[in-house]
Amino acid sequence: MMTLSLIGIGCGDPGQLTRAAIGAINAADLVLIPRKGTAKTDLADLRRAICADVLINATTRIAEFDLPVRDAAEPDYRKGVDDWHDAVAAAWSRTIEEHLGGDGKAALLIWGDPSLYDSSLRIARRLNPLPRIEVVPGITSIQALCAAHALPLNDIGEPFLVTTGRRLREGGWPQGVDTVVVMLDGGTAFQSLDPNGLHIWWGAYLGLADQIILSGALTEVGPRIVAARQDARARHGWIMDSYILKRRP
Amino acid sequence: MMTLSLIGIGCGDPGQLTRAAIGAINAADLVLIPRKGTAKTDLADLRRAICADVLINATTRIAEFDLPVRDAAEPDYRKGVDDWHDAVAAAWSRTIEEHLGGDGKAALLIWGDPSLYDSSLRIARRLNPLPRIEVVPGITSIQALCAAHALPLNDIGEPFLVTTGRRLREGGWPQGVDTVVVMLDGGTAFQSLDPNGLHIWWGAYLGLADQIILSGALTEVGPRIVAARQDARARHGWIMDSYILKRRP
Ligand SMILES: C[S@@+](CC[C@H](N)C(=O)[O-])C[C@H]1O[C@@H](n2cnc3c(N)ncnc32)[C@H](O)[C@@H]1O
Ligand SMILES: C[S@@+](CC[C@H](N)C(=O)[O-])C[C@H]1O[C@@H](n2cnc3c(N)ncnc32)[C@H](O)[C@@H]1O
Repeated sequence: MMTLSLIGIGCGDPGQLTRAAIGAINAADLVLIPRKGTAKTDLADLRRAICADVLINATTRIAEFDLPVRDAAEPDYRKGVDDWHDAVAAAWSRTIEEHLGGDGKAALLIWGDPSLYDSSLRIARRLNPLPRIEVVPGITSIQALCAAHALPLNDIGEPFLVTTGRRLREGGWPQGVDTVVVMLDGGTAFQSLDPNGLHIWWGAYLGLADQIILSGALTEVGPRIVAARQDARARHGWIMDSYILKRRP
Repeated sequence: MMTLSLIGIGCGDPGQLTRAAIGAINAADLVLIPRKGTAKTDLADLRRAICADVLINATTRIAEFDLPVRDAAEPDYRKGVDDWHDAVAAAWSRTIEEHLGGDGKAALLIWGDPSLYDSSLRIARRLNPLPRIEVVPGITSIQALCAAHALPLNDIGEPFLVTTGRRLREGGWPQGVDTVVVMLDGGTAFQSLDPNGLHIWWGAYLGLADQIILSGALTEVGPRIVAARQDARARHGWIMDSYILKRRP
C-alpha cells in the first residue's frame, strides 16, 4: 500500500522545520516538488533547498512535476476548483506511478500547515487507489505573523476569526469578534473597512529574507501598508502577505 | 540588556520542536521551568525532558521556580488575572535576577505557540526593566488536532472561528461561520448545542503517549466523547482536550 505524507514545512524560514518534518522527509521514498513554469510563486527553489539541507537518506528520490493550471475561464468557481483538484491528483498519481509503482512512501512539502487554506488533503482524498494519508503539522503564517510582531493573537478568553480578503471585502467587519486574521487577500481588503478604532499587524514574505512588517492604528498605518505592498510587489513580481486586525474600544 | 525568549515547543510531541526552538534553547543562558506544587498539569517533567534531550550548550543553566497561584476567590475575574500576571512577572524577575543578574538571555518553554491562549507575552510586558522580547513560534494544539484527524481546518475559501468552551456555552453557535475550534473547555460545552447537522473532531492529550481522538456526527459521537473524557480524566487526574465542530447542510 502507498503512504502519502503531507509535511508542513513552515512558511519560509528553514528554522521553522520541525524534527518530525525532517524525519518524515527522510522516511520518504519519493519527494514530489511541483513546478509552475518559471513562476517564483511555486517556491520550488525553497523546497529544493530544504531537501538539500535536511536529506541524509541516500535512497530518497526527488521528482519534480508540472502543476496543472486552474481554468480561470470556468464561470462556475466550485467546478473550476473541482476540475483542478482532479487534474492535480492525476499529476501526483502519474509521477508516483512512474517513480515508485504501487508501493512505498511519497511525500509533499506543504507550505505552512497542511490543514490551513491548503488543498493537498482534499486532493489526496481523490487519489485512486486511496493511499494511507499522514499529516505532519507545520508552523502557519498566522504563527509567523504573531511571532514577528510579538503579538498575542487572542485577547484574554476571547475568540478570533480567521478569514479571507474576499470575505472581509464582501461582508465587512464580522459579528461577535474583535480580532480578525486575514489571509489570501489578493489586494488590501482592509481598505473597505471604516479604519477608526482598528489596529493592524501586517507582514509580507514572513520568514523569508525579504520579510516586511508594519503595525499601528489603521488610520495611520493603512496607507503605508498599501504603498509598501505595491512597491514590494512591483520589485519582486509577487507578494504573499497576511494581517491581523483588532478592534479597540 | 536582558533578552527574554518565549519559545513555542509544540503541545506534547517532542517531534513538534522546530529547529529554531532547539537553537533558541541552546542560545539561552537560563531556562526557566515553572512548577505548580506536585500537579502534573505544570508539565514540568516534559520541559525537563526537552532540555535533557536538546541542550548541547554546557553553559545554559536551568532554574525551576514555583508558579504563583491565581486567587480563585477574587470576585472580579479581570482583576484576578491582572494580579496573577503581576505575581508571575515578579517570580520570573526574582529567578532571573538570582541566576543571571541584569544581563543575558532567559528563556521560557511555552506550550504550543506563545501567541495562542497563553499569557506569557502579556506577563513579559510587565517586567521592569522591560527586556527585549523574542518569540519563537510553535505547533499549536489546533494544528496537532487537525493532523491527528488528517482534517482540513477550513472549508474552501471559508472562514473559521477559534473560541473557548465558556463562550460556546454562553453564546451558542456563532454567527457567520460553519467551522468552530473550541479550546479551554473545562467540560463538554458542545453538549449545550443542538447536535443535529454538527460533526465533531475531538482530541485529548494530543501528541502525548495517551493521545485519544474521536470523530463523527455529534449525535452519535458526542455521548462517546463525554464518556471517554470522564474516564480519561479519572484515570490521569487531569485532561487537556480540544475539538473542531463543523455544521453540514
Ligand atoms: C494558500 S494559503 C496557505 C497557508 C499555509 N498553509 C499556512 O499554513 O500559512 C496562502 C496564504 O497564506 C498567507 N501566507 C503564507 N505564507 C506567508 C508568508 N510567508 N508571509 C505572509 N503571508 C503568508 C498569505 O495570506 C497567503 O495568501
Ligand atoms: C492555555 S491554552 C494553551 C494553548 C497553546 N498555547 C497552544 O498553542 O495550543 C490550553 C488549551 O489548549 C488546548 N491544548 C493544549 N495542548 C493540548 C493537547 N496536547 N491536546 C489537546 N488539547 C490541547 C486545550 O484546549 C487547552 O485547554
